[in-house]
Amino acid sequence: MKESNALQLPAIRIQGGFWRDRMDNIVREVIPYQWMALNDQIPDAEPSHAIENFKIAAGKSDGIFYGLIFQDSDVGKWIEAASYGLIDTPNPELEKTIDGVIELIALSQESDGYLDTYFSMSAPEKKWTDFAMGHEMYCGGHLIEGAIAYFQATGKRAFLDIMIRYADHLDAHFGPGPKKKLAFCGHPEIELALCKLYALTGEKRYLDLSRFFVDERGKHPEVIDNSKVIHWGGGGPAMNPWHQKDYYQDHAPVRDQADAVGHSVRAMYLYCAMADQWRLGGDETLGVALKKLWESATERRMYVTGGLGSQGLCERFTVDHDLPPDTAYAETCASIGLIFWAWRMTLASSERRYADVLERALYNGALSGISLDGTRYFYVNPLEVVPGIVKARHDHIHVKSERVQWFGCACCPPNIARLVCSIGQFIYSHSDASIWVHQYATGTARIPVAGGEVVLEQASEYPWVGSINITVREIKQGQEKLCLNLRIPPNTGNAVITVNGQGVPVKLNDDGYAMVDRVWESGDVIGMKFEMPVRFIRSSPLVRETMGQVAVQKGPFIYCAEEADNGPNLHLLRLDPTAPAILEQASDLGHGIMKIKIKGTRVVADTERPLYSTDPYRSEECVITLVPYFAWNNRSPGEMRVWLATR
Amino acid sequence: MKESNALQLPAIRIQGGFWRDRMDNIVREVIPYQWMALNDQIPDAEPSHAIENFKIAAGKSDGIFYGLIFQDSDVGKWIEAASYGLIDTPNPELEKTIDGVIELIALSQESDGYLDTYFSMSAPEKKWTDFAMGHEMYCGGHLIEGAIAYFQATGKRAFLDIMIRYADHLDAHFGPGPKKKLAFCGHPEIELALCKLYALTGEKRYLDLSRFFVDERGKHPEVIDNSKVIHWGGGGPAMNPWHQKDYYQDHAPVRDQADAVGHSVRAMYLYCAMADQWRLGGDETLGVALKKLWESATERRMYVTGGLGSQGLCERFTVDHDLPPDTAYAETCASIGLIFWAWRMTLASSERRYADVLERALYNGALSGISLDGTRYFYVNPLEVVPGIVKARHDHIHVKSERVQWFGCACCPPNIARLVCSIGQFIYSHSDASIWVHQYATGTARIPVAGGEVVLEQASEYPWVGSINITVREIKQGQEKLCLNLRIPPNTGNAVITVNGQGVPVKLNDDGYAMVDRVWESGDVIGMKFEMPVRFIRSSPLVRETMGQVAVQKGPFIYCAEEADNGPNLHLLRLDPTAPAILEQASDLGHGIMKIKIKGTRVVADTERPLYSTDPYRSEECVITLVPYFAWNNRSPGEMRVWLATR
Repeated sequence: MKESNALQLPAIRIQGGFWRDRMDNIVREVIPYQWMALNDQIPDAEPSHAIENFKIAAGKSDGIFYGLIFQDSDVGKWIEAASYGLIDTPNPELEKTIDGVIELIALSQESDGYLDTYFSMSAPEKKWTDFAMGHEMYCGGHLIEGAIAYFQATGKRAFLDIMIRYADHLDAHFGPGPKKKLAFCGHPEIELALCKLYALTGEKRYLDLSRFFVDERGKHPEVIDNSKVIHWGGGGPAMNPWHQKDYYQDHAPVRDQADAVGHSVRAMYLYCAMADQWRLGGDETLGVALKKLWESATERRMYVTGGLGSQGLCERFTVDHDLPPDTAYAETCASIGLIFWAWRMTLASSERRYADVLERALYNGALSGISLDGTRYFYVNPLEVVPGIVKARHDHIHVKSERVQWFGCACCPPNIARLVCSIGQFIYSHSDASIWVHQYATGTARIPVAGGEVVLEQASEYPWVGSINITVREIKQGQEKLCLNLRIPPNTGNAVITVNGQGVPVKLNDDGYAMVDRVWESGDVIGMKFEMPVRFIRSSPLVRETMGQVAVQKGPFIYCAEEADNGPNLHLLRLDPTAPAILEQASDLGHGIMKIKIKGTRVVADTERPLYSTDPYRSEECVITLVPYFAWNNRSPGEMRVWLATR
Repeated sequence: MKESNALQLPAIRIQGGFWRDRMDNIVREVIPYQWMALNDQIPDAEPSHAIENFKIAAGKSDGIFYGLIFQDSDVGKWIEAASYGLIDTPNPELEKTIDGVIELIALSQESDGYLDTYFSMSAPEKKWTDFAMGHEMYCGGHLIEGAIAYFQATGKRAFLDIMIRYADHLDAHFGPGPKKKLAFCGHPEIELALCKLYALTGEKRYLDLSRFFVDERGKHPEVIDNSKVIHWGGGGPAMNPWHQKDYYQDHAPVRDQADAVGHSVRAMYLYCAMADQWRLGGDETLGVALKKLWESATERRMYVTGGLGSQGLCERFTVDHDLPPDTAYAETCASIGLIFWAWRMTLASSERRYADVLERALYNGALSGISLDGTRYFYVNPLEVVPGIVKARHDHIHVKSERVQWFGCACCPPNIARLVCSIGQFIYSHSDASIWVHQYATGTARIPVAGGEVVLEQASEYPWVGSINITVREIKQGQEKLCLNLRIPPNTGNAVITVNGQGVPVKLNDDGYAMVDRVWESGDVIGMKFEMPVRFIRSSPLVRETMGQVAVQKGPFIYCAEEADNGPNLHLLRLDPTAPAILEQASDLGHGIMKIKIKGTRVVADTERPLYSTDPYRSEECVITLVPYFAWNNRSPGEMRVWLATR
């Protein structure tokens, strides 16, 4: 294990390329749009009421709580996203808006530090009683993350102090010993938030309380009394996986858990907390458990898009290699959670496999959750959509054929906003004498190493072209000797690394990173070029639904066929992996997006043919046009398919 | 349209071969077994309480109604099956048992003819109020069918008279005009039962009442007030297809219905009634509608096994070509209903396509509902079962990996019993100067034609071998000129027809039957031989899930691969349709069942291979062993798969 440190956001600026385009969208369009959504100002969208709930709780408006029990968390995530927006682009008006929300939050907080508009207003007698579905600490965790981000963005302490009071309230009520309550939240989140608060404040009580919540999980069946969970679905326990302990990852002590099970977002947030405890708390036993869970989640239970969760009901993992493309859940939040977990694993161990998966989830299953214009969202990200089937079949009821403006349960939209707007955090990590470059994006980073701060300026044509230049802009005397570790993305080839135009040998370290270990001078330029051929990916043959089909990948992007380019009945297409792939700018999508065109055949949908017959199929030549999966459903609605038959 | 007449059961005897074996099982094992089940005497089986309900209603036992609202219908179907058993094999003890049940039914009937133990005992104030889910007429219809069968078996009128009083009760309460109630049952069945009662008694009021129920359907939204249906599932209307009119085939007048929709068993029973009205009532407009519905049901929405209903929730049809093998519903009762409908279409039009589909459903999707020993049942008949997936995935919750002893909702077991035990009825039909031979089974038939009764003695090696001999055993003077119409089964080849050993030209009439039109003498033997090669069936390419795969068929049997023969992960098998197929007696199944062995390959389930990789698959040679679909799950439990990949 080579532990490395994260950079905080102000130290990294995104200044061009793919991610600048995406961040511009978040800063300019998404943050204002989501503010309108939280204020119920989007016509025809599902209502949120999240801000109104705080207004009512603050005594500034009349009415009653409306929305899901965890509606407060949307506000926490939006403030977090907006704060990252402020770090990127100062915006006094936005800052004033957030200050206004913080005033509401301050007034909503009870005198003892408790904070949750649902329970304060609607069920005060039930506070801290429903650890299965109450989501109190979950909401608190997201508000803590928002408060930390806003403090980092503005230096203002008001929100942070509110959430410190909240954390102190938790610490006073929960923990070991006879005077405190033994409990933990059905939806993990507070655990990782407390670790963040510890990292910011240095207050070890928060790390200890987080560890308590992690450690006690799975040992006390009485805490998450899921036998009482009836408000989330009908039927008895057999019909209702909410009654199953593994839904909450509460079926066994966390160190005994080896399979990624249950609600996939809950799982990801728990594993994040475990990884924080591994790294910050130094608990190697958690590292051992996490590596098993990683293998289960990413080597047996993950979609090729980095999507997690194979079943709609309970948004959950099922069993190994059960990865149906059409009934997938693959929640946007689960891919985001996987990115958070992968990043923590990266920091804890510096093995490249974590950054590889982070990249897969980032460019595919997470980014697909938001439209190119930022105003439409997918909660569920299947790998095959046939609108007529989605409409007809009850077992597709969780799937939407088109992104929507907002959700009654809107966890995903602000989550993707905060992710994209803080994308810089995942690019570098560092130790005393090493810098790791995990992801590629044009921009500047100020990286503290033993000798002082190093400023790197990255110019990246990735993810569209395999060409990256990193210029050492500033380097302190005495720090010239430094090992730069570059991740050569998977599914690329013939990587060449240069320093100041001179080739250097590509030497991989034990963790899979290409090392360039030398004495640097200001102005040195490290270049990396690699080929990004179109690849034809096959799943493990144990994946029943996709065995024998191919997914097309170029660089980090999984591609898909859309009806907009190929007409309906995409299952009739048969791709020829030996045919040359032609790349083409997608003028109808913009944003530098590249289409792939490749020859194939289409089975003729002969309507005269009997339903069952011994006749062979007739096929005709065709060109199959593919677009990156994340960019689908940005034109006319219709079918989409990732896994394609081959001829 | 060439209308033909049905033979009643006592006129046809099954005396050998495949169907004698199956009938022996019903007569010797199933009827006694199901009697025990209806009396809750099967250890570990789901309780029935159906007989106990009648005992309580009759005042012979204490207690309250238990079971589904339509539990009475199981008794009607069991009496019908047992009566066919009595026709086949007299059994005074069984007859005495049935007489005892009939006494209970007589005592359960109310003085005005009303009969339904649930409503009489548990909700008398709600009689004739819930036409969506009340199932009152549905139960009455099955009791009428049972009464007719028992009368045919024994000549005893007691039960028949009970049900005539019941029918008169209906006729007094329902029908046109201001003094009668405008209603029809949410689950069709009474309509076809009333037609049967009309055919037996000649009482036209029953035909007219049946026609009233058929005609008014889909015209009066207030009758089936499904907005109140809440006791069958949670969620609002959007979540709950029980709230949709098409579930009840009540979305449009029946003559305007062109797609087979909704609950598939309800659909089949409605179409049976429409076909009865077409034939018995002479209403050609119904024939026009039925032909459209037939094309929808069998040419776009039917599994290759003759299974109907693609979705578990609401046991219903979905949309054209949506035929997933693993989440199929394909209820045993729906295939049985399809057989009943196909038979009525055969009688009304004598087109061979109806008998072809009847055969498909009979030998596959219906017969799969019962184990070879007769004591285990499938309600749902998917075309792919992976036990681990069935257990793990909520969208497979309707599927069972193994047949069970009984169901709380036990419509299927007595339905398959009455079907098999009355198999003789589907073999012949006749008009003045023609006899049609639709199906093949060893046995004797007494067939009335214009000149008097003709006795045919059939010796059939079908379905295992394509060899049938029909001997004219008796023929009346003056009736010697007679056209015999033979159906040459589909998926056979090179049919040869002989009369007394001499080949005759195979001439198909416009309806697709081979005509042998001549002057007959007693002792004449018509022989038919045909090849039954192993066929590789492809679905329409519009069937997404099975496009590119093959189903193996020999004669009427669809075959499948089972884990018992091939090990797990059947999706890894790739069949070579050009390899020779070897036939082998299935010593582990008995009953003359033939296995098919055919060379193929198996993709190696390399657990070291990454979940996603550009590596090609490795394959190894193997022999794929197949058993008839109906005979699966009669050995050790495990996977089953009909549609196989090809190499």
